[in-house]
Amino acid sequence: MTLADETTLFARLRAACLDEWIAYTDHAFVRALGKGKLPEACFQRYLGQDYLFLIHFARAYGLAAFKGEGLDDIRLAAAGLDAMINVEMGLHVKFCAGWGLSEAEMAALPEANETLAYTRFVLERGLAGDLLDLHVALAPCILGYAEIGETLAARHAGELDSNRYREWIEMYASTEYRDVAKAEAAYLDRLMARRGGEGRFDSLLVTFRQATRLEAAFWDMGLKR
Amino acid sequence: MTLADETTLFARLRAACLDEWIAYTDHAFVRALGKGKLPEACFQRYLGQDYLFLIHFARAYGLAAFKGEGLDDIRLAAAGLDAMINVEMGLHVKFCAGWGLSEAEMAALPEANETLAYTRFVLERGLAGDLLDLHVALAPCILGYAEIGETLAARHAGELDSNRYREWIEMYASTEYRDVAKAEAAYLDRLMARRGGEGRFDSLLVTFRQATRLEAAFWDMGLKR
Amino acid sequence: MTLADETTLFARLRAACLDEWIAYTDHAFVRALGKGKLPEACFQRYLGQDYLFLIHFARAYGLAAFKGEGLDDIRLAAAGLDAMINVEMGLHVKFCAGWGLSEAEMAALPEANETLAYTRFVLERGLAGDLLDLHVALAPCILGYAEIGETLAARHAGELDSNRYREWIEMYASTEYRDVAKAEAAYLDRLMARRGGEGRFDSLLVTFRQATRLEAAFWDMGLKR
Amino acid sequence: MTLADETTLFARLRAACLDEWIAYTDHAFVRALGKGKLPEACFQRYLGQDYLFLIHFARAYGLAAFKGEGLDDIRLAAAGLDAMINVEMGLHVKFCAGWGLSEAEMAALPEANETLAYTRFVLERGLAGDLLDLHVALAPCILGYAEIGETLAARHAGELDSNRYREWIEMYASTEYRDVAKAEAAYLDRLMARRGGEGRFDSLLVTFRQATRLEAAFWDMGLKR
Repeated sequence: MTLADETTLFARLRAACLDEWIAYTDHAFVRALGKGKLPEACFQRYLGQDYLFLIHFARAYGLAAFKGEGLDDIRLAAAGLDAMINVEMGLHVKFCAGWGLSEAEMAALPEANETLAYTRFVLERGLAGDLLDLHVALAPCILGYAEIGETLAARHAGELDSNRYREWIEMYASTEYRDVAKAEAAYLDRLMARRGGEGRFDSLLVTFRQATRLEAAFWDMGLKR
Repeated sequence: MTLADETTLFARLRAACLDEWIAYTDHAFVRALGKGKLPEACFQRYLGQDYLFLIHFARAYGLAAFKGEGLDDIRLAAAGLDAMINVEMGLHVKFCAGWGLSEAEMAALPEANETLAYTRFVLERGLAGDLLDLHVALAPCILGYAEIGETLAARHAGELDSNRYREWIEMYASTEYRDVAKAEAAYLDRLMARRGGEGRFDSLLVTFRQATRLEAAFWDMGLKR
Repeated sequence: MTLADETTLFARLRAACLDEWIAYTDHAFVRALGKGKLPEACFQRYLGQDYLFLIHFARAYGLAAFKGEGLDDIRLAAAGLDAMINVEMGLHVKFCAGWGLSEAEMAALPEANETLAYTRFVLERGLAGDLLDLHVALAPCILGYAEIGETLAARHAGELDSNRYREWIEMYASTEYRDVAKAEAAYLDRLMARRGGEGRFDSLLVTFRQATRLEAAFWDMGLKR
Repeated sequence: MTLADETTLFARLRAACLDEWIAYTDHAFVRALGKGKLPEACFQRYLGQDYLFLIHFARAYGLAAFKGEGLDDIRLAAAGLDAMINVEMGLHVKFCAGWGLSEAEMAALPEANETLAYTRFVLERGLAGDLLDLHVALAPCILGYAEIGETLAARHAGELDSNRYREWIEMYASTEYRDVAKAEAAYLDRLMARRGGEGRFDSLLVTFRQATRLEAAFWDMGLKR
């Protein structure tokens, strides 16, 4: 997969925790979703918690704006925050409405421990560390979903018409989303050049591996329902 | 002045440090600007530092998004950040171009200690305290400029045509800017209701008074040139 | 129980989420421990994760020092950090050695999601909110352990000699620990007076309830082993 | 001077902004103090503001504890915070008493803008960046005072008996203080190895140079009185 081009920081982090990465991107939840066999209650459980997740992800972009070292960093973070609040969440709410979930219902859901663990971990990394630590904590989500979308779209090409989760798969397999993921991978490389070097790899890997595990735990949570 | 309506938190803070407030809003820099007699070098000095100031103010809105307690707080902060980055700074850059200052020149200016003191004070208040502390630290800037704009426009009505600073005065006396200031005052009241009560007034006043002094020091810095 | 004296903020928070509080303080793990019937593997699982927990709790005291509004706040936080690092952790390590767990082993343990969720939640509350938010997030741990210690010591008085967890129970039932808990409850009241009022109660309760649930999840984690 | 041994990060930062470094360490305030000719009112002005400065420096050590990546970082920060609160400030208060300044008087002093600018800059660097950014912002103070102490003690050897500032000079020229400074330089090198590499040098230099300028401005403030 091109996003995992071997020369990028992302590709190196991914390769260095491949077991955890596969446990996340090829999770039973993901495979069932690709085959259209995921129980709807599981998907709804996931969608509702993902709504709560996005609120904290928006906060992470706000934090990135604060931590920006110059106008370019701030602009990128502001664009990410705006996209999250005014595009992603709108799409999500619309999409969820099609699955019988209103925004008011989702906002009132109790937060699952898996949602809480992942989102607070990301925010805390961003505050204890620097902008690179923050973006490495965000990367498994942003880049993993692109890989999942691409993989499922390729694996189930020709069968998607009959898959009730088709729209979700196509969203993350889209060129638009892929461009977001590529931009994130490129930004990680720029931050790595500016904010460090090899000396940081080990500690960034600890963060990346943990965030990847927490993504897998998020799918577990979906299956529990 | 209606913004200083006695029942608002802003009005109470303003009244409680009226000497500092007047030293800021009726500063020699402001009076000279109103009469069109401020030396251009002073105005340019101010404009250049204000550019650097706005970058850190944008970061403060990012911080406010992180500190948001729900989607409404986050949306407000995101809108403020977007306005700062994509509207205010654009207007500022365009305005400064008319005064012979390019964006590249302003970005390369050494930061004056007055700029540094004020901006870092605001950010640090936001991090040590909560969203209310942060917004109280921002208030003298947002609301003071509206008062200055309104006062100068009224005091020099009929004479502005010949004032080379007319555009600046009209910008801060505009209905659009006044609406921004009123929205900030209303938000302060909502935060005060939600994040505290009378017990916080004394400590908020310490922050408000300090930020007001730092605004006056910012004008001093302009006059030094 | 006197710690839950009705006039304190702690007592009001505790009463407002009594179901969650009881689910935590009267958890199956706690009851089994009180009877000496908790499997040793469960206790060891708990002890190991508690070691990792204490490291992040020490960080929370560092954060409290940063957020201090004056020398008194800073001194209290510094004393808490010092006690955590130089007393609590030493006792914990010594105690764990008696249960066959070396410090090196504990430091190398993978962090359970329950440990991660709780500790990062506390730190994030402290950064997004103010010193009162931070201490309310810490309160269920500090004050709940005192209540558990006192309750178990009273309920099983006369039977503790034959309980292999006697030392743990007596530690949290001790006058020393009780004084720590009382000081925390008193500090919460001082912070409430200084940092807010009734307007904050609802949002503090959200934090307190969540931290209480995460304490119960921490016991669940112990039982899983 | 050995502290500025060419192989350390500190020595490289110092060499890269030598003009600013000399403007700070060989400031007119420092030279007058070395000769015993500094007006007492200037020294008292400095001492009072230094008291306020130390409070925020203590907060910076709290922040370092929060940002610690493991128990070693946390222990170092806790020891620094403890030394600041329980040793340095005590010595400072005792020393100031000899100069006619009570702790209550110092605590009630209005904070000079120079004090505010420097301390908030350090704290904000620590929050926007990582532990290395924070310690680089602290370095000009910790290591510069050791250099000043050593230089003045050597330059005025034999004349110190008649210098009313002898005690101050000997404190910073002492082996104890020199050991603190050496430990800080060594820690900077460890953090540089762990948290980055050459890519970070430019941005660390921006922070170091700014902190060095703010130290010089702090002496300016002392002379103004």
